[in-house]
Amino acid sequence: MKYMGVDKSYENSDIAILGIPYDGTTSYKPGTRFAPNDIRINSLIGYETYSPIMDKDLEDLKICDLGDIDISLADVKMVQKEIENKVDEVLKKDIKICSIGGEHSITYPIVKSLKKKHGDFKVIQLDAHTDLREDFSGSKYSHASVMKRVCDCIGSKNLYQFGIRSGLKEEFDFAKENTNLFKYNLEAIKDVIKELKDQKVYITIDLDVLDPAFFPGTGTPEPDGVSSKELFDAIKEFSKLENIIGFDVVELSPEIDSSKISTAMAIKVIREMLLNL
Amino acid sequence: MKYMGVDKSYENSDIAILGIPYDGTTSYKPGTRFAPNDIRINSLIGYETYSPIMDKDLEDLKICDLGDIDISLADVKMVQKEIENKVDEVLKKDIKICSIGGEHSITYPIVKSLKKKHGDFKVIQLDAHTDLREDFSGSKYSHASVMKRVCDCIGSKNLYQFGIRSGLKEEFDFAKENTNLFKYNLEAIKDVIKELKDQKVYITIDLDVLDPAFFPGTGTPEPDGVSSKELFDAIKEFSKLENIIGFDVVELSPEIDSSKISTAMAIKVIREMLLNL
Amino acid sequence: MKYMGVDKSYENSDIAILGIPYDGTTSYKPGTRFAPNDIRINSLIGYETYSPIMDKDLEDLKICDLGDIDISLADVKMVQKEIENKVDEVLKKDIKICSIGGEHSITYPIVKSLKKKHGDFKVIQLDAHTDLREDFSGSKYSHASVMKRVCDCIGSKNLYQFGIRSGLKEEFDFAKENTNLFKYNLEAIKDVIKELKDQKVYITIDLDVLDPAFFPGTGTPEPDGVSSKELFDAIKEFSKLENIIGFDVVELSPEIDSSKISTAMAIKVIREMLLNL
Amino acid sequence: MKYMGVDKSYENSDIAILGIPYDGTTSYKPGTRFAPNDIRINSLIGYETYSPIMDKDLEDLKICDLGDIDISLADVKMVQKEIENKVDEVLKKDIKICSIGGEHSITYPIVKSLKKKHGDFKVIQLDAHTDLREDFSGSKYSHASVMKRVCDCIGSKNLYQFGIRSGLKEEFDFAKENTNLFKYNLEAIKDVIKELKDQKVYITIDLDVLDPAFFPGTGTPEPDGVSSKELFDAIKEFSKLENIIGFDVVELSPEIDSSKISTAMAIKVIREMLLNL
Amino acid sequence: MKYMGVDKSYENSDIAILGIPYDGTTSYKPGTRFAPNDIRINSLIGYETYSPIMDKDLEDLKICDLGDIDISLADVKMVQKEIENKVDEVLKKDIKICSIGGEHSITYPIVKSLKKKHGDFKVIQLDAHTDLREDFSGSKYSHASVMKRVCDCIGSKNLYQFGIRSGLKEEFDFAKENTNLFKYNLEAIKDVIKELKDQKVYITIDLDVLDPAFFPGTGTPEPDGVSSKELFDAIKEFSKLENIIGFDVVELSPEIDSSKISTAMAIKVIREMLLNL
Amino acid sequence: MKYMGVDKSYENSDIAILGIPYDGTTSYKPGTRFAPNDIRINSLIGYETYSPIMDKDLEDLKICDLGDIDISLADVKMVQKEIENKVDEVLKKDIKICSIGGEHSITYPIVKSLKKKHGDFKVIQLDAHTDLREDFSGSKYSHASVMKRVCDCIGSKNLYQFGIRSGLKEEFDFAKENTNLFKYNLEAIKDVIKELKDQKVYITIDLDVLDPAFFPGTGTPEPDGVSSKELFDAIKEFSKLENIIGFDVVELSPEIDSSKISTAMAIKVIREMLLNL
Repeated sequence: MKYMGVDKSYENSDIAILGIPYDGTTSYKPGTRFAPNDIRINSLIGYETYSPIMDKDLEDLKICDLGDIDISLADVKMVQKEIENKVDEVLKKDIKICSIGGEHSITYPIVKSLKKKHGDFKVIQLDAHTDLREDFSGSKYSHASVMKRVCDCIGSKNLYQFGIRSGLKEEFDFAKENTNLFKYNLEAIKDVIKELKDQKVYITIDLDVLDPAFFPGTGTPEPDGVSSKELFDAIKEFSKLENIIGFDVVELSPEIDSSKISTAMAIKVIREMLLNL
Repeated sequence: MKYMGVDKSYENSDIAILGIPYDGTTSYKPGTRFAPNDIRINSLIGYETYSPIMDKDLEDLKICDLGDIDISLADVKMVQKEIENKVDEVLKKDIKICSIGGEHSITYPIVKSLKKKHGDFKVIQLDAHTDLREDFSGSKYSHASVMKRVCDCIGSKNLYQFGIRSGLKEEFDFAKENTNLFKYNLEAIKDVIKELKDQKVYITIDLDVLDPAFFPGTGTPEPDGVSSKELFDAIKEFSKLENIIGFDVVELSPEIDSSKISTAMAIKVIREMLLNL
Repeated sequence: MKYMGVDKSYENSDIAILGIPYDGTTSYKPGTRFAPNDIRINSLIGYETYSPIMDKDLEDLKICDLGDIDISLADVKMVQKEIENKVDEVLKKDIKICSIGGEHSITYPIVKSLKKKHGDFKVIQLDAHTDLREDFSGSKYSHASVMKRVCDCIGSKNLYQFGIRSGLKEEFDFAKENTNLFKYNLEAIKDVIKELKDQKVYITIDLDVLDPAFFPGTGTPEPDGVSSKELFDAIKEFSKLENIIGFDVVELSPEIDSSKISTAMAIKVIREMLLNL
Repeated sequence: MKYMGVDKSYENSDIAILGIPYDGTTSYKPGTRFAPNDIRINSLIGYETYSPIMDKDLEDLKICDLGDIDISLADVKMVQKEIENKVDEVLKKDIKICSIGGEHSITYPIVKSLKKKHGDFKVIQLDAHTDLREDFSGSKYSHASVMKRVCDCIGSKNLYQFGIRSGLKEEFDFAKENTNLFKYNLEAIKDVIKELKDQKVYITIDLDVLDPAFFPGTGTPEPDGVSSKELFDAIKEFSKLENIIGFDVVELSPEIDSSKISTAMAIKVIREMLLNL
Repeated sequence: MKYMGVDKSYENSDIAILGIPYDGTTSYKPGTRFAPNDIRINSLIGYETYSPIMDKDLEDLKICDLGDIDISLADVKMVQKEIENKVDEVLKKDIKICSIGGEHSITYPIVKSLKKKHGDFKVIQLDAHTDLREDFSGSKYSHASVMKRVCDCIGSKNLYQFGIRSGLKEEFDFAKENTNLFKYNLEAIKDVIKELKDQKVYITIDLDVLDPAFFPGTGTPEPDGVSSKELFDAIKEFSKLENIIGFDVVELSPEIDSSKISTAMAIKVIREMLLNL
Repeated sequence: MKYMGVDKSYENSDIAILGIPYDGTTSYKPGTRFAPNDIRINSLIGYETYSPIMDKDLEDLKICDLGDIDISLADVKMVQKEIENKVDEVLKKDIKICSIGGEHSITYPIVKSLKKKHGDFKVIQLDAHTDLREDFSGSKYSHASVMKRVCDCIGSKNLYQFGIRSGLKEEFDFAKENTNLFKYNLEAIKDVIKELKDQKVYITIDLDVLDPAFFPGTGTPEPDGVSSKELFDAIKEFSKLENIIGFDVVELSPEIDSSKISTAMAIKVIREMLLNL
């Protein structure tokens, strides 16, 4: 089963989709492990490869779906290593990586791998939460500290955070000094995109940036988020970036939303992002 | 059980409500067959006949609820004939028809019947999907090809499509030549209404035109749709049409949305549309 | 278990949270009785005491959580007396009251108690429904007549109603003469706040003022409501009121919304309102 | 809508079905109020009027379905009076009464009415719980004290309790002196039936007598109950009673069991019991 | 995705598994179309190929899984022809057929195909319902008349029905003359097996023969059925049959049972039956 | 919140209840982490401390509820050490331990701690699965290998396994040599109890030993299990053991069973087991 039925071979692809079904640091309600397959199954039913917004079709791109990475039920460090190794393998083939989480903690090993491949680059994060804790529940590799780790890796002021509306005061204070944080909405994206136009950019989309009305299927829904319209407008802006080096879409927990509108959202966000690569 | 408790007799009515619980061409998740009764049951609980937007009351209109049409579990062609015959019967009495689906395929036999009664008229379609395939899953009468059939019946350029955001490239290409298609939102309605003001107009509302946040209870939720505010503004615009010859409201699949907000939406859309007749 | 883990003693508090798990006049789907505890449980998981909108932290306020009031399963009059007595007790200590419903009928005994303590004051109501019936289902103390009782208590034109979009024609007629009713949205709040700036104000938030997309977890979802953005903007406006004497948040029915986004909404509304006191 | 489509008029019936949708003393999870209609709706779909166990058909009996009794949302005493009055009315016409709950508290007013009509009679109770408290949550008319009230009414040792597996020690002690209580299973029914063969007997079936495996749709499921086989064997035994003066079936809470097997159970228990009258 | 991961090629197999996801004559709640895939997905998680009852392992048999038959959304007659053709193809290769429904109507075309291949044979039916109507809802090919069609095909008295507990009086009367019907339980199987030991036998298992406690996931749950113990004892008995020519397992509707115990039951029944071939 | 409201202090108790909300090695559907609190919440609603089977009352025992053990989201080895340490602490006070899982992997560290305290003892396991793999998914401490680890700890032939009906052939082969395994049912318990009457015995109850009909709320439901009657009869037998040194109850996954009958089962099993200590 492949996302949207993409059918290129690994060798002949420009883009590789990789499922990373990991939710091991999720302290409350696990379930993002089920996202990659739920996205694949539903993508085959009633969704089109053609995007009328972009007037482009996935069928015109060379995309393979590598399935899910094999994760041993071990400690989080080992999982992070397994992800990093797999992404190393993809990047070595000069293939761009589209990762489907899983929880947000998966972004750090991807960024580490990209760092080795690409040197300096920027990271754009769409998210409801700062994710800037030094550690959480005894681990430095938790979903709640992932963007702190990313900052450690890519260096100060290379992270752009949008839609943020929850966090500790300390996290917002840290952001003032060390990241570019834009609260509540995505309005600032337009200007930032202009600035980053010809730079290497990685994009991580935590779908809980959306208001829970538009994306109820997530573990800690944070009210007062962005609308679907705002999100797709932002993704449309991303098409102006000339050098997107990859992206991930995380934190869909499909069993929480029995109506499946959250899975539909993930499917469409991934499609539009793929058409941006 | 009657929608909102309307209690006029068939003979003394200006408007007849007809339930058409058919979902036989639904390839993935059937369930729109349960919509008409779910709408009736819930309309009796906590919903008012008075509309503060319109400052009008259903109790001041002559409306009967004919219950559900009897559908034999046969092939789709026979079902279409049964619908057409029933609508013929209603129209012969000079009663306007308000149909509650069921899936969208039910619109074609209604339009066929109206054609016999009214000759030329326009059709306004609110929908997420083009529904313009020549055929689907081996049938020309599928929900996915219903508006193609309608075009065949009412002639080129008499169909106005709003809110469309999904379809094959071929369908959008067809629309360019043969319909009036407005993508993503309902903004163009205002101008179109002015143009159609004194013409005969039939309105078909596929509720999936709404963003799934506002209407999760449908089989193939398509993200990035219109808001409830936009839809009710459009319906308010319809009040300027002087000759609405009928309408249908389709694609509610009530079991998909356990919170019942989708059924509530259908109830209110029907009420406001009835007050427009 | 305390809301957000607030841990002040009753004696040392400026604000007391009181759960009122009553849904005895709910004619259709009971369940608001489960709201106070569902709010408490979920507030401990993934939600922060710090508000980036307000740049304030609950931990800097003196708040106690008194748990749930003990309600005998008796007639509604006795329940109303029990609520009034409990609120009397809180107010006698010069503590402000934050009540978590339960259904809307609980607001009347709170207002009665506040009247004894404070004399004249204004009431701001955010709600989808007028709640101005003289009686409902044989009782004057029903949720559907609660604001009529409040009017009886605080006198004509002291009630300000926002977001109202459902009711009988008679209720809207009554409102024209006896309350200040603003239909559909919250736009008028800004001006009203200016007028009430230095007056005593009690605020009752029926969460069904929100569009069901943002708050599906309620017994009679009324489409075409306000967005989360509009509600939090209004709450931000309330921060300009200099003398809020208390507030309540009612009509969350948590079992109706299995995704828990409605409970999350209640948690955040209560947090922002507490930071306004 | 009538149970199983029974269609006799009130006047021409030997048996009247009465829905009593009351759950006002239910302290935890209300919902039995939805049972009568859920039973009616589902009885029309896939269930037969013919019983192969009895080799009898409901269509050969004169049964009417009176719909649901109109209950004001008032105190429990008033509700009990309303039930008693309605049953008085039925009995005055020499019609046997089949009541569908609602919670178990409804049995007491029925028994009171029967007492006036029939003088002395026996009561057979199938139940997981003793229901013999003097009062509960401040009321003598609670579901938890209903059989105590019944004992008060019909006198000592006229109550036969089967399947009981939960209660306070005091209740079991009371039962030793004042009722005929058989724990855990229904084995003793055979002998008791022989004894009561030609006496007037009223039967109250609290469906939670069943193991929750067979009847999950109830508010306080009590494990280790009787199987469906045991229950239908007992009902078959009841056919030997020559003078059953009525029966009730209570405590189905349909929303708790989404698979609807509990509603199916209630439908079949009622059918077999009706064929016993 | 294959049932239990069976991995033989079509050509090298003795047994072929065929999914038939058809529910087009289901008058009330469709959903058996989702059974074959739900069975496959769940069979890969936590279920073993080794049966401790049989002390046999699926891995020692030559089984292929042909996936789901392609069904056009056409009239039931065309669907029946498509099934028959596919089974013809399998039988021509001298492969035994194991079909997974779908609704019970799929059994008739299988039996027709087997008749052409094998000439005379017996059919054993485990079922709650007689399924012996001449037609239903206007069709002779409905699930409710499927065993009547089978009788027409294999001739009088060649059908053995067990566990039957629901039907019209006329159906039971027909059965007396034309089939071998054993009511309520499976006790008679032992003796029948002795009689049929060396004859060709086809077995059709409608899983609703089970008590709904053990199999809630079906459209019309019929209380008072057989236990899992009784069913697996019967299947164990089938191992004494020397010439089982195929079997089907039908009427799982997986979405009705969110706990998935019904899917687990189907998985295990299929495993034990495969080990019997 | 305490199980059944038990209210003794840690120091004054003979028995300590310990929640162990760990499900980190659960490969498919996590969720047993929610069991301890779900059991506590529901135990306070409608369940009695008095057992009519035992004619004993929990209120007459000295029991404390220590709440849930604090588990860091680390690797399974660290979790196992944290459990062992906590149980060491309890045993040092000469308090008996009743542990509520969580998944079955938690039993091994408990047994290790008991070994240090008690030297030789027997373990009785009620379970659907052998749990005798050497390792699973890369870990020796998985739920699927827990009883293998227990065997390593307590020595050959000291483990008694009942109700087992699923496993690899190799596991059954291992059991023949190294444990005392009784397949499918609990009949052999009576004789084993006689043999172990005056020995030290630890009992681990994996609730999936029950047929899924009686306990649907578990991750891998295995059909054809024991009935509630059989389980409670076995527990009654345990009352003859003179030296039960502790017990655990594991594998309730409450969110899988929305009707809550599985949680009710766990509550009652724990009550009856506590009364056996």
